[in-house]
Amino acid sequence: MRQSQLFTRVERNAPKEEVALNAQLLTRGGFIYKNSAGVYSYLPLGWRVIQKISAIIREEMNAIGGQELLMAALHDQHYLKATGRWDVPVVFKVVSGEEKVPLFNMSWTHEEILAEIAAQYVHSYKDLPFSAYQIQTKFRNEPRAKSGLLRGREFLMKDLYSFHASEEDLYRYYAEVAKAYHRVFERCGLKAYYTLAAGGDFTLSNTHEFQVVADVGEDTIYVCEKCDYAENDEVSKLEDGGECPKCGGKVSVKKAIEVGNIFPLGVKYSEAFNLKFKDETGQERPVVMGSYGIGISRLMGVCAELFHDDRGLLWPAAIAPFAAHLIVLPGADATTGAQVRARADALYNQLTAAGIEVLYDDRQELTAGEKFAQADLIGVPVRLVVSPKTGTQVEIKKRSDTITTLVDFNQAEQYCIQK
Amino acid sequence: MRQSQLFTRVERNAPKEEVALNAQLLTRGGFIYKNSAGVYSYLPLGWRVIQKISAIIREEMNAIGGQELLMAALHDQHYLKATGRWDVPVVFKVVSGEEKVPLFNMSWTHEEILAEIAAQYVHSYKDLPFSAYQIQTKFRNEPRAKSGLLRGREFLMKDLYSFHASEEDLYRYYAEVAKAYHRVFERCGLKAYYTLAAGGDFTLSNTHEFQVVADVGEDTIYVCEKCDYAENDEVSKLEDGGECPKCGGKVSVKKAIEVGNIFPLGVKYSEAFNLKFKDETGQERPVVMGSYGIGISRLMGVCAELFHDDRGLLWPAAIAPFAAHLIVLPGADATTGAQVRARADALYNQLTAAGIEVLYDDRQELTAGEKFAQADLIGVPVRLVVSPKTGTQVEIKKRSDTITTLVDFNQAEQYCIQK
Repeated sequence: MRQSQLFTRVERNAPKEEVALNAQLLTRGGFIYKNSAGVYSYLPLGWRVIQKISAIIREEMNAIGGQELLMAALHDQHYLKATGRWDVPVVFKVVSGEEKVPLFNMSWTHEEILAEIAAQYVHSYKDLPFSAYQIQTKFRNEPRAKSGLLRGREFLMKDLYSFHASEEDLYRYYAEVAKAYHRVFERCGLKAYYTLAAGGDFTLSNTHEFQVVADVGEDTIYVCEKCDYAENDEVSKLEDGGECPKCGGKVSVKKAIEVGNIFPLGVKYSEAFNLKFKDETGQERPVVMGSYGIGISRLMGVCAELFHDDRGLLWPAAIAPFAAHLIVLPGADATTGAQVRARADALYNQLTAAGIEVLYDDRQELTAGEKFAQADLIGVPVRLVVSPKTGTQVEIKKRSDTITTLVDFNQAEQYCIQK
Repeated sequence: MRQSQLFTRVERNAPKEEVALNAQLLTRGGFIYKNSAGVYSYLPLGWRVIQKISAIIREEMNAIGGQELLMAALHDQHYLKATGRWDVPVVFKVVSGEEKVPLFNMSWTHEEILAEIAAQYVHSYKDLPFSAYQIQTKFRNEPRAKSGLLRGREFLMKDLYSFHASEEDLYRYYAEVAKAYHRVFERCGLKAYYTLAAGGDFTLSNTHEFQVVADVGEDTIYVCEKCDYAENDEVSKLEDGGECPKCGGKVSVKKAIEVGNIFPLGVKYSEAFNLKFKDETGQERPVVMGSYGIGISRLMGVCAELFHDDRGLLWPAAIAPFAAHLIVLPGADATTGAQVRARADALYNQLTAAGIEVLYDDRQELTAGEKFAQADLIGVPVRLVVSPKTGTQVEIKKRSDTITTLVDFNQAEQYCIQK
């Protein structure tokens, strides 16, 4: 994409009203816009990152048999009343013009909705197991919406739900999901600890969270430095410097951000929505459910918190908005400038034709320093510069590096493809 | 996808509570689930159709320079109060647990949001023109939500907004969008009339609607049978059987469904959100805006209304959930049955490896008649049957046709690729 066409601009200064670093960096780069506390719009650059993260999640969820759908966001009151969650403080309720009494809540989670849908299709043990997921906006009335994308009142989430004939089968799939989640976070460049956490009213037992260590994290976890075993401090009896109960390694305490969670739900939702099946003996039994979430917009926020330097963002290649940032510096001389522009245009066309996503800073009137500073703020992994000095070649530099190299156009193409 | 894995099932009977044909057909096929009046979930088959339609729209919007983003769904009250739309009856408002007074409305349209965002980035005539769009859920408190996907309280919409230095430039782009819209509807298999319609309070002049002729349509349009000129009856002085003002052809009156609309907004939103630019002379002027919508879930409903026969749906190839529906009929003999299944599996693998999206009815215990009837309800364009009678070949049939042909696997692959 030509940067002259991109309607957002990089902002020199951090936004005054944003406390969280992720919100500052993402706002300055033109990735997000704050509409109100905890409510953001994803601008073209930010939406590209969200789409990259979503594509990774789709691949991994499809690989474990997840069927994608999109469920309703307006939830009729019968759903949450059936499970006693209608008056949970985090629920936003919806009123229409004439009415005073809310009839809907806004989608804050979808166990009730999918349990009712599944009840229409599941009758026999032969219909089980299966899993379904969606990527959708969730709405939660967060009183502490001050952490940018880490804690939103409106945020993007992937939620997967699974349906089983037995607890054993649920836990078999639970382990599969855990592996898929590790792949998702690894592909996003993140190390996530699989962390034992408290069960809620609606779970069979303890649950598990995926926690990424970060100073701004709201959670405290105990992590074994040797085997990565981890517990959330809400359930843990471990101590900082103590011994790992699994391998005897040294445990240390860390601040962390929850990026995913998995819940063995059991039969609570099935019972509320008459989701039953006939087993091999003809006996009717409630379906055993699990639910599994990943905060997609929060993942973008976590990456901004962790992957930056004092010049701006440093996107991992897999979720960067573009693979390469091509900058043309035509220089002062008009004749040379036209030749330099033609060469940069040719490189842009060559890379684009090869399927490489390139942000092309073709803007006039900006100095080299301004273009470089803005590119650093945006944080695309590879920077390419075409100038009077580069001749028929192009200067290549990793965003995370300071070394520049002159390569020819085909080498640049190969380099970007290998990313 | 193996149909034994698909968690939805085809329903023999039409749902009792659905009046609209599109809702009946889509519910029976397992495309949608009704959560409450005018509120639907898109099940795996339906979500595939929605994604196909969305992909077509994205291609066409990107081709005219539209930049994709995703804007907030929770709209702080300052947005609609600034333009006097806070108390529009169609607006759903949001209340949180403790509060009695609504602070947000749910996204019913996004002119206000994007005007405010644009005001942060637009300063000079050099920043114009540009356009941005999103595919997002809209919420409208429809009192008449009885037409299935044709009139929802929650629905999927593509909304594009454009920003210009002059009305002339707006109308230049307006014509480009109209062309792109025609391509979108044609690719979805629909003939849409570009129809003159009434302007609202916030538009420069008349607007245009894209209308698809259908008996269930809520709109009445006058259409020239010769040149396709069309006017909505709200603005029209034409008469059934009268003369076309453009070409002199014969005008006839039709019932129609609005599938898209385009509005020349002018400067109302720019003025409300201080969206100004400096022109070439340094003078500050308000930005001229346009907005352009396509109802994505409604398009799926329109296709169901128009493309079916008495056996079920008939999806156009471009938006069908799958390109081919492969059915295996192993027969009564176990040995032959195993061979037939192996052949069908091989064809499924071959087609899938070639990138063809196949729904594979590998289910046991269903008769040929049941499988055929269910395939007809789902409406995939091409049906492939492997049975003891087909030998090393496969029987191929168009959903819209009754003629079956025996072809070899490679011919079947070629046929599906050409679709």
